[in-house]
Amino acid sequence: MSGGYIAIDWGTTNRRAWRMSAAGEAEASLKDGRGILSLTPDAYPAEISAIRAQLGALPVIAAGMVGSNRGWREVPYVDAPAGVDALAAGCVTIKHAAAVLVPGVALRGAARADVMRGEEVQVLGAIAAGLAPADALFCQPGTHNKWIATEDGRVTDIATALTGELFALLRGHGILAGMLDGAVADGAAFQDGLARGAGARDLTVALFEVRARVLLGRLAPDDAAAFASGVLIGADVGARDDLAGRTVQLLAGGALADLYAAAIRQCGGTPVTLDSERAFAAGIHRLWELTR
Amino acid sequence: MSGGYIAIDWGTTNRRAWRMSAAGEAEASLKDGRGILSLTPDAYPAEISAIRAQLGALPVIAAGMVGSNRGWREVPYVDAPAGVDALAAGCVTIKHAAAVLVPGVALRGAARADVMRGEEVQVLGAIAAGLAPADALFCQPGTHNKWIATEDGRVTDIATALTGELFALLRGHGILAGMLDGAVADGAAFQDGLARGAGARDLTVALFEVRARVLLGRLAPDDAAAFASGVLIGADVGARDDLAGRTVQLLAGGALADLYAAAIRQCGGTPVTLDSERAFAAGIHRLWELTR
Repeated sequence: MSGGYIAIDWGTTNRRAWRMSAAGEAEASLKDGRGILSLTPDAYPAEISAIRAQLGALPVIAAGMVGSNRGWREVPYVDAPAGVDALAAGCVTIKHAAAVLVPGVALRGAARADVMRGEEVQVLGAIAAGLAPADALFCQPGTHNKWIATEDGRVTDIATALTGELFALLRGHGILAGMLDGAVADGAAFQDGLARGAGARDLTVALFEVRARVLLGRLAPDDAAAFASGVLIGADVGARDDLAGRTVQLLAGGALADLYAAAIRQCGGTPVTLDSERAFAAGIHRLWELTR
Repeated sequence: MSGGYIAIDWGTTNRRAWRMSAAGEAEASLKDGRGILSLTPDAYPAEISAIRAQLGALPVIAAGMVGSNRGWREVPYVDAPAGVDALAAGCVTIKHAAAVLVPGVALRGAARADVMRGEEVQVLGAIAAGLAPADALFCQPGTHNKWIATEDGRVTDIATALTGELFALLRGHGILAGMLDGAVADGAAFQDGLARGAGARDLTVALFEVRARVLLGRLAPDDAAAFASGVLIGADVGARDDLAGRTVQLLAGGALADLYAAAIRQCGGTPVTLDSERAFAAGIHRLWELTR
């Protein structure tokens, strides 16, 4: 295992770890729910030991919320525009644990502020691996959907939308609770929702319409969740006015990627689905090389 | 008490009842938390008896969610455009209880659907009492803010925004929970939020910015709630493109009315605060006269 290391994508609720070869190839991995919210700061040395017991006694490089003020140790954000070099320069080494923590990226624009931790590794890795061009627009759906623009291989813009979180809050609580338990797929109800939500300035009115449409017999109760999801994803994607004729690099898989792909197409963009795990491996390996 | 009656505004979580004179003057009242969510359909006769024990053995007319499918008995919506006559024609009498239930109003537009139950009595009452003109725009903030347009004394448009509910959900759950416990008043942070939210198509991005601004030291933690409230109310009010130079009839009082008034002014409108209790009394009295 000479020259190998362990790479960790350590998020809020989940983490994944890979044993990487010196050449940057993933050789073994583990995935569990021990995200930072389930850990106190003093728990990390033991967590690292447990990961080494499974993957090998190797140095560690970790990205994601592990470097936040709720994680192991706070690693200051690097400011956008930021490329791999700036990210590597901002890494913090915890010597006693033979571990490197990767910083996040902050957008301190005149009009807007935003932050991310972890997604930048996938984005810069996708470019490093040739999966995406150096000037690109990435979309990484999830509880919080991240839009990330790059120019010349550097992150230049970040916009985080609470889309997934709002859907979960509305499904679990409030006036729409109990109405949003149906399946969500790219069908007629989802498309109707997309059309209602895309470009809407009255998102909260559109959300109440889920209830009104069901009460007035215009929306089948089983379709309410798909319609509401369409409204929210439509508002998220439709808020961008830069999608027409543009390729969007989608860092996701599964059902959620399908829904965002449909919304991107509806707004005139062309979605391309990337292998986010491969992108992360490429990005973290580049950072590993630069911080050795 | 000859010719007198009891008027009830019976909502989801609260109810108010007034003993009304034959001339429509409120003579006594009660207010409690026995809204429809705390009652089963078979509980209403006993509830009415208890109200009569306090206010007098008089016939009853009740408006609000009491006529919904979760209330005492479902009273079908009357369709907009709807004036007092249509509302009176849609009332349902429960003879054994000597009670009249007022219907709600439904908007079945080509593009939009919306509903209300209870607010229409205040709106039509405000017009009947001369508090507002027959062609007007009303705003009734609350958990769900209702925008109601009237023409020639009839309700022609309804838009319900989930503004207050979203604020409560974000304060109680998710990534912003714990950040939104500060005071909300019309100060600099609220105005910054208004400016960010008004007309925004990216409301869910603006909401994540609350967190990013605090993390990056651009927003004091104590100001986060006021900023977030400004974003949400700004989006609600700013979604309307018909406020410039227009008077908005505000059916609310207290702190929430102040916040909406500030947002309406920022969007070029002129808020006028109405006495919503007086408006309800005038509306329910008109309906009482028409249904006797």
